[in-house]
Amino acid sequence: MELRLALIGFGGVNQGLVQLLDTKREVLRAYGIDLKVTAVVDLRMGVLTNPGGFPLDVLLNCIECGLEVKPLLNCAGTDIQPNADLATTLKVIASDIVDVVVEATFTDPNTGEPALSHCRTALESGKHVITTNKGPVALAFKSLMATADAHGARLMFEGSVMSGTPVIRQLSTTLRGAEIRAFSGILNGTSNFVLGKVAAGDTFEAAVKDAQARGYAEANPAADIEGSDVQMKVLILANALWGADLRRSDVHCEGITGLSEEAIRSAPDNGSSWRLIGRAQRNEDGTIVAGVSPQLLPAGHPLLAATGVTNAITFDTDTLGSVTISGPGAGRVETAFAIFSDILELASVHNGAAREGTK
Amino acid sequence: MELRLALIGFGGVNQGLVQLLDTKREVLRAYGIDLKVTAVVDLRMGVLTNPGGFPLDVLLNCIECGLEVKPLLNCAGTDIQPNADLATTLKVIASDIVDVVVEATFTDPNTGEPALSHCRTALESGKHVITTNKGPVALAFKSLMATADAHGARLMFEGSVMSGTPVIRQLSTTLRGAEIRAFSGILNGTSNFVLGKVAAGDTFEAAVKDAQARGYAEANPAADIEGSDVQMKVLILANALWGADLRRSDVHCEGITGLSEEAIRSAPDNGSSWRLIGRAQRNEDGTIVAGVSPQLLPAGHPLLAATGVTNAITFDTDTLGSVTISGPGAGRVETAFAIFSDILELASVHNGAAREGTK
Repeated sequence: MELRLALIGFGGVNQGLVQLLDTKREVLRAYGIDLKVTAVVDLRMGVLTNPGGFPLDVLLNCIECGLEVKPLLNCAGTDIQPNADLATTLKVIASDIVDVVVEATFTDPNTGEPALSHCRTALESGKHVITTNKGPVALAFKSLMATADAHGARLMFEGSVMSGTPVIRQLSTTLRGAEIRAFSGILNGTSNFVLGKVAAGDTFEAAVKDAQARGYAEANPAADIEGSDVQMKVLILANALWGADLRRSDVHCEGITGLSEEAIRSAPDNGSSWRLIGRAQRNEDGTIVAGVSPQLLPAGHPLLAATGVTNAITFDTDTLGSVTISGPGAGRVETAFAIFSDILELASVHNGAAREGTK
Repeated sequence: MELRLALIGFGGVNQGLVQLLDTKREVLRAYGIDLKVTAVVDLRMGVLTNPGGFPLDVLLNCIECGLEVKPLLNCAGTDIQPNADLATTLKVIASDIVDVVVEATFTDPNTGEPALSHCRTALESGKHVITTNKGPVALAFKSLMATADAHGARLMFEGSVMSGTPVIRQLSTTLRGAEIRAFSGILNGTSNFVLGKVAAGDTFEAAVKDAQARGYAEANPAADIEGSDVQMKVLILANALWGADLRRSDVHCEGITGLSEEAIRSAPDNGSSWRLIGRAQRNEDGTIVAGVSPQLLPAGHPLLAATGVTNAITFDTDTLGSVTISGPGAGRVETAFAIFSDILELASVHNGAAREGTK
C-alpha cells in the first residue's frame, strides 16, 4: 500500500523517524508499504512539499546539514512556502498528497495547540494521524476519536506515553480480553533520574542541572519535576483504556518538588526508593480516581525495574494479576520507533483486509 | 465465527479455561465468537464428545464434582469412550466436530509425546492448535510450523513460556519492526521462589518443600531446580523469534542445585540477588548462543522486578534498547488466559478478513 507521510514538526523525533525509515527499508518492504514523505513542515524550514516524495537520503542530508533546506529544494517537484504558519500548514495537511499526518511538534499542556488543530484538520480530511504529542490526546481524546471514526481515519499515539516502549498497543493486542482495573507507572524519566541522583547524595539543584546537561530535562524542567508531564500521560492512558473523558483537573497532581532532600535520602536502606508515580483506577461503579504523587516503593516492587530515565508501568488486571512493562521513556529514535510501529499497524490492518479481498 | 474446541487434557489449565469462557462470555460475543466445547479428552474421564457442544455450566458442574462425567453424559448428543488412548484421541482431534485443538496435557521433555502427536494430527487435519504445553513447541517447532502452513492452520503457544504474561505475542505485535538481538529472563517461578527463600535464611530443602506445599513445585521438582524447564522455554523463544532449529543439546543447562546456600546468601547486601537466568543471543553471523544458569544480578537490574513466582523477560533490541515484561509465570486461570488470548487472536484475524469480505 502507498503511504504518503506529512511530517509536522521536524525536530528530534521526526528526524529519528527518517533515520529509521532508512535503516528499516526491508521491514517496510516486507509489510508491502510503499512509503513516501511528501511534506515536511517546520517553523525553521517552512512548508516543503513534493508530491512524488522526498528521497530519504536527501532528507538525511538535510538533517546532517542542520536543517538546511537546499537539498530538498533541489529535488524535482519541490514546492516551498517559507512561512510555516497555521493556515499554510493545515492546507498541506488536508491536501491530496497526504495519507498520514505524523504530528511531532511541541506539547502545549494548556491548549494542545497548534498540534490539536493539526490533528483535527487531518482527521476531518480523512487522513490517519500518528502523534507522539501528548497535548491533543490528553486534552481532546474523545472528540478526536469521534472525528476519526466519522471520517474513516485512525488516530494513533503509541509514542505519547512511554516513547518507544509499547504500552498503548498492549491494550489492544497482548492484554485484550483482560479487564484492566488500575495502572500505576513511572512515566517521567527526568524526575526518576533526579530522585536517583538526590538519593545518592546530590543536591536537587545539581541533579536537575545534570539532567539538563544530559539532554533529559528541558531548559524549563517544571513539567518534569512538578508532575504535569505525568499528569498528561495518566490522562491519555485513562481515556484510552476506559473511554473516559477525564480533564487535567480530574487528575490530582503533586510533583517531586515537595519532597525534601532529607526525605528522599531517608528511604530505608533495604532497596526501597522514592519514585514519582502516575496512577489511575476504575472503581466498580465506573468512577475513575487518578493522580500523580511521589511514593516510597518497597524493595522488590516491580516498578523499581525503572532506574534512571527508564519508564515502567504496571497494569492490574482481573485474570492476570499485575503485568509490568519497562523500557526507554525518551529518546529520538526510540520515540520514532513508536511512530514506525504505528505505521506497521496501519499497513497490517490494510494488508489483512487486502489479502481477504483478493479471494 | 463458530469455533468448536476440543480440550485435550482436562487438568487445571483447561478447567481454568472453561471458567474463563464462562466469565468472559461478553468478550467472546464482542469478538463475534460463537464458541462451543465439542470434545473433552482426559485420562481420568475418557473421550467425551458432543457435536452440539457441552453447555459451559455443565462443564463447570463436572469440574466442581471432581471430574465426575455424569453431568456431561446427561447432555443430549453426548458420546463417551471410556478409554482415552492415543488412537481414540487422535480420531476425535481429526474429526469434523473440531475447529481448534487446545492441547494442555503434561509436558514430556524428552519426546514431547503424546502432546506432539495430538498437535501434529490436528494440524495435518487443518485444525488450529493452541497449546500451553512446552514439549511440542520446544522439540518440533519447525516441523509443526511447516505442517500448519501446509494445511492452512495456525499453531499458537502464548501460554507455553510465561503462562498468561504476554511474551510470544509481543514479538508479532508490540515489538514488530524491532530487531531482537537477545533475550534473558527469569522463566521459572519455583526456582525463583526457592532462591528467595534460601537468601532469606531457609535451607534449600525447606524452601523446595515450601514451594511444593504452596503448589508451585511438582512432586518431582527436578525440572524446576535443575533448569530443564527453563531450557525448554529458551528453546521455544529462540526458535519462535529467529526461526531457529535449536535442540535441547544446543542450550547449555545449569540449574540452581549447583549453588551452595552460602553462595546464595553471600550476595552483597545492596539489593543484588542470585537468579536462574535463561538467555539467548543471535550473533551477527546468524549463529545463536543459548543457555541457562544462575547469575548474580546487581541492584536495579530490570529482571529483579520478578520476585517470588513472578517471571520476567528482557528483550534487547536494535532501536529500543531493552524492554522488560514481568508478570505471573504460572497459575491455572493465568495460563488459561493465554489460551483465551490466542482464541481472540484467531477471531480477530478472521473478523478483519470478514469485515473486508463484506465490502
